[in-house]
Amino acid sequence: MNTFGNIYKLTCFGESHGPAIGGVIDGCPAGVEVDMQFIQSELDRRRPGGTALGTARDEADKVEFLSGIFEGRTTGTPIGFAIFNTDQRSRDYSSIKDVFRPSHADYTYFAKYGTRDYRGGGRSSARETAARVVAGALAKLALKAAGYPLHIDARIAEVGGVRGTEEEMNGMILDAKRDGDSVGGIITCTICGVPAGWGEPVAGKLHAMLAAAMMSINAAKGFEYGSGFEGCRHRGSEQNDAFAFRDGKVVTLTNNSGGIQGGISNGMDIYFNVAFKPIATIFKQQQSVDTSMNPCVVEPKGRHDSCVLPRALPIVESMAAMVMLDACLMSRSSRIGGY
Amino acid sequence: MNTFGNIYKLTCFGESHGPAIGGVIDGCPAGVEVDMQFIQSELDRRRPGGTALGTARDEADKVEFLSGIFEGRTTGTPIGFAIFNTDQRSRDYSSIKDVFRPSHADYTYFAKYGTRDYRGGGRSSARETAARVVAGALAKLALKAAGYPLHIDARIAEVGGVRGTEEEMNGMILDAKRDGDSVGGIITCTICGVPAGWGEPVAGKLHAMLAAAMMSINAAKGFEYGSGFEGCRHRGSEQNDAFAFRDGKVVTLTNNSGGIQGGISNGMDIYFNVAFKPIATIFKQQQSVDTSMNPCVVEPKGRHDSCVLPRALPIVESMAAMVMLDACLMSRSSRIGGY
Amino acid sequence: MNTFGNIYKLTCFGESHGPAIGGVIDGCPAGVEVDMQFIQSELDRRRPGGTALGTARDEADKVEFLSGIFEGRTTGTPIGFAIFNTDQRSRDYSSIKDVFRPSHADYTYFAKYGTRDYRGGGRSSARETAARVVAGALAKLALKAAGYPLHIDARIAEVGGVRGTEEEMNGMILDAKRDGDSVGGIITCTICGVPAGWGEPVAGKLHAMLAAAMMSINAAKGFEYGSGFEGCRHRGSEQNDAFAFRDGKVVTLTNNSGGIQGGISNGMDIYFNVAFKPIATIFKQQQSVDTSMNPCVVEPKGRHDSCVLPRALPIVESMAAMVMLDACLMSRSSRIGGY
Amino acid sequence: MNTFGNIYKLTCFGESHGPAIGGVIDGCPAGVEVDMQFIQSELDRRRPGGTALGTARDEADKVEFLSGIFEGRTTGTPIGFAIFNTDQRSRDYSSIKDVFRPSHADYTYFAKYGTRDYRGGGRSSARETAARVVAGALAKLALKAAGYPLHIDARIAEVGGVRGTEEEMNGMILDAKRDGDSVGGIITCTICGVPAGWGEPVAGKLHAMLAAAMMSINAAKGFEYGSGFEGCRHRGSEQNDAFAFRDGKVVTLTNNSGGIQGGISNGMDIYFNVAFKPIATIFKQQQSVDTSMNPCVVEPKGRHDSCVLPRALPIVESMAAMVMLDACLMSRSSRIGGY
Repeated sequence: MNTFGNIYKLTCFGESHGPAIGGVIDGCPAGVEVDMQFIQSELDRRRPGGTALGTARDEADKVEFLSGIFEGRTTGTPIGFAIFNTDQRSRDYSSIKDVFRPSHADYTYFAKYGTRDYRGGGRSSARETAARVVAGALAKLALKAAGYPLHIDARIAEVGGVRGTEEEMNGMILDAKRDGDSVGGIITCTICGVPAGWGEPVAGKLHAMLAAAMMSINAAKGFEYGSGFEGCRHRGSEQNDAFAFRDGKVVTLTNNSGGIQGGISNGMDIYFNVAFKPIATIFKQQQSVDTSMNPCVVEPKGRHDSCVLPRALPIVESMAAMVMLDACLMSRSSRIGGY
Repeated sequence: MNTFGNIYKLTCFGESHGPAIGGVIDGCPAGVEVDMQFIQSELDRRRPGGTALGTARDEADKVEFLSGIFEGRTTGTPIGFAIFNTDQRSRDYSSIKDVFRPSHADYTYFAKYGTRDYRGGGRSSARETAARVVAGALAKLALKAAGYPLHIDARIAEVGGVRGTEEEMNGMILDAKRDGDSVGGIITCTICGVPAGWGEPVAGKLHAMLAAAMMSINAAKGFEYGSGFEGCRHRGSEQNDAFAFRDGKVVTLTNNSGGIQGGISNGMDIYFNVAFKPIATIFKQQQSVDTSMNPCVVEPKGRHDSCVLPRALPIVESMAAMVMLDACLMSRSSRIGGY
Repeated sequence: MNTFGNIYKLTCFGESHGPAIGGVIDGCPAGVEVDMQFIQSELDRRRPGGTALGTARDEADKVEFLSGIFEGRTTGTPIGFAIFNTDQRSRDYSSIKDVFRPSHADYTYFAKYGTRDYRGGGRSSARETAARVVAGALAKLALKAAGYPLHIDARIAEVGGVRGTEEEMNGMILDAKRDGDSVGGIITCTICGVPAGWGEPVAGKLHAMLAAAMMSINAAKGFEYGSGFEGCRHRGSEQNDAFAFRDGKVVTLTNNSGGIQGGISNGMDIYFNVAFKPIATIFKQQQSVDTSMNPCVVEPKGRHDSCVLPRALPIVESMAAMVMLDACLMSRSSRIGGY
Repeated sequence: MNTFGNIYKLTCFGESHGPAIGGVIDGCPAGVEVDMQFIQSELDRRRPGGTALGTARDEADKVEFLSGIFEGRTTGTPIGFAIFNTDQRSRDYSSIKDVFRPSHADYTYFAKYGTRDYRGGGRSSARETAARVVAGALAKLALKAAGYPLHIDARIAEVGGVRGTEEEMNGMILDAKRDGDSVGGIITCTICGVPAGWGEPVAGKLHAMLAAAMMSINAAKGFEYGSGFEGCRHRGSEQNDAFAFRDGKVVTLTNNSGGIQGGISNGMDIYFNVAFKPIATIFKQQQSVDTSMNPCVVEPKGRHDSCVLPRALPIVESMAAMVMLDACLMSRSSRIGGY
């Protein structure tokens, strides 16, 4: 259950404070030119630090490709890669070792496995998403090589309930940080350039695949596409998208469907929202229990982001790119002969 | 892409006006007592007709089990089943044969496959969900047999933007019907009785599996769990769920996490919302194009529901039950020995 | 674990004496013309009776398609089908109900599931293979529609250790029958017309897929391809297949590789052998134990084939056709763009 | 298609002369004590050199675990690992770059992908099997931790057609080496300690899983289990395994079934044979074609093994261990409740 995708597949591994995170990308077609600079630039987008909005900790996420690339192109064989954790010095974990931090995965991992790697959240740390960014960046390159230079664009739509200018939303983040608190929000992602006919019926609906991909990102609490929850407050006569024929292609005059009908793309822009909760780590004392089931107080410690959204943008795009490439490759088996 | 689940799997088939719909349930453990009356009663819940809120058309959905059950119990072998379409008389499909109905899957199926079974929506008809109800009902029985008599309860939370009494919400549906229109809404589902430790990390997060399952239901436009979109408008100090130890088990004092942390159940109630759009079939003329890409008008015809929600309740519960049984069975491999 | 294939998938169900056997074929591309007569003729090939070599019992295996076909062609949606067991009258199973027949699956099913459908072998009966023949026949049609009219031909190569004329081999079968015994043998299958480049490296090697498919057939005990076991008794200088260029294509001057190198087809004929054991049901008293773990004697009863090979021919071909279509569809994702 | 297994899964990567080979092991239960020395000793068994029978090239295969292990035990999260290729110095590949070596995968990879990493055979090199040995060694440890300390033992049964003493078989290998030639043979593997009830019906038969696993090993040409091909030359009365009850368990008096009936283990020893062809690399001139489709002569070069069998032993055992652990974990879902 650490594998994403059906044909284009990422199987990932890695804990926050282990030797490395990484993965194996299987099913990438041969012939994709691997633009290393682009992949690294995507990784850099999810780095903390850099701006006042993130933490100061500097992780240099340098990806090392271990296989599947030859003379600058993919060969069709699996692409192993790793990002080594450079900052692995021994630390003092005594404050979290025996404590279940509220709204983290400490307790549930312990309940499931009877053990957990408590260092920095272990497998449940958002650090694992770096592997997704590598696979997503490659998916973008593969889509382009396949003749589908999709425009995938994730933006922050709302922070702390404020849907406003970038300035206002950044203000919400800085306010939360100043208060030793965290704040949630919503990311909108738009995918332009998808032809009609991608996505599979019933169990493989394109929006269901997007929902699973997005909800698998740490801190995601909700997903909606097209007119989403709000559209469900209206009537069919207001929501239905009339078809027309424009410039040689079928279009809809409105796009409440968000580019997907019956689970299959209709050629219009795909768009969806993902809601992310406020980060669970805050600089306040919190009530909890320890591994001996005694009450305890979790003390604030360390330095952390106060909002996940800025760093989640490339992750949302990466998951979207993987889903789209997968749908693209699956669509190659939809028909036979000249039919 | 017509298979749901990892260990407990439903592979389904069937078109609205073909000979039958049905499926194969694979991975159901041996020894489950098959309560045929219960399964049929679940199927009856999604029948139209019956109430003023649904259509008058009477489909008697009688499931026939073809294998995998012996002397009243599952044997561990695959369970084939079919629901034959009794109402297969020849009809006049000329009004929809060459027309892409707005916000239906007519155009996208055509774009994907170069062909489509246009009779009653074919595979994209909500009729396919009857197969899910069969598999979901059996999943409920299997969970009970496994010692987990979960309480899975879906309710209509909102219709046409109105979050109110059943009377008010029914009024919205009848109003839409009277106007020849349709209306959307939101279903809330609660799952009680799930122990801590179900769900898989990263790609198999319990809420991601629920999201994929729910978004695969016809007309679903959005999914959120726990405090969902609304919770993402708040701060961490307001959203974090403090742990405590009560009556011999770990609990959280609030449940904004919706019973799931890090993709794994924490033993609290699981709850989530699913938004359903207004049904695309309405009794109004609509602009569209035909298969020759000429403009056309889609004329209203036949009798249809004006709101999908009443019939969607058992489907939401069924998908939830399948996801839970699957998670239950997967959890059997989490640990080894006495560890 | 009742699903074959990766893209073209058969999920099958059914017990020997239950209401029906059948399955769901998912992943069949749209546009395949479904030649019902051909499919039925393939099913007829595996029928017992007809010849002196088989049993006299007459099963009319009539397949009913329940979905996925419209106006004579596949639509891309899943194809449900069933073969109803017409001969379901109540019988006296007291002689086998509590007894584990030697070299049948009675005991192992009981050990695995704690229960078993003992009527006619239940799920372990060779009757389930009829579903494979349906999916295999459709695979042959799909390959043809895709521009690959493969010639797949299974023949009996050896019976009871005799590798001879049809007459001699038939004699071995009749001799065994007369003696109330059964006899095993070897089937050779040849696949002509496969282009170079089908099959996947490492875990999806074409011959490994063929091996898994063939070994899943009831009574199969061995698989070898190309020069097989015998070739492994020789030296590399004798076994290597030199390449040459003939009539515009790369060929090998010998074909000890059996048309597959590194798990990928090389354009030469693919050929392999499958060994089938003598049928376990014989007309002799046999020592066994019953479900109470007491010694017992299994008494001969009923009428049965004395050799599985004549009926296994269409099954071997069907499994081969499914593997080839699956490889064909997977090969569509090997490369990208014009590369 | 670089993933083995259903619950216990290895997804592997790596080319012979790339930076590293390795993989991700997903689905290993938590709590397995990871005996690093044992894993390394298994890897050492497949090393060349050491004996007169192998090549002199020294590859130090040191595995580095990158995740999924904490305080000496598995945590239930995916286990990433890599074996770095220490010997990556630039070489002269001009002699193989444009040439398709007979009975290697050079041509078929090229036909499939339009490109290939020609250095040392790339992905098709037997070097990839080192990743399988790591996953197999861990599977052995997990089986033991689960209470099933299986005894899995692979031995060379035959070399160059000689089924004899170790001395004679070694003589065959040295003779071939002296002649600049190679020689094939057969490995027998026995698995003791498997309880009755492992393996899945129809598509997941235990011997079909073993066949797929074994046939995926480089150079494998045939697989048989129990009495195999030879048993198929006999009659049912000679081959059937009578049941008896001894020392509190059901046994068979003979074991022609090789411990598997109907695809499910019966508690007796499992045994099977795998045939390996003579290594394709020989020290003789061979006819071939180049990438421009011109005839050419492949000149002998470098140092290579003359027989794959000694090094294949731990690989056969590793694949067997993975199949068995997978079957063990799947069997946990066979039944429900106390049934």
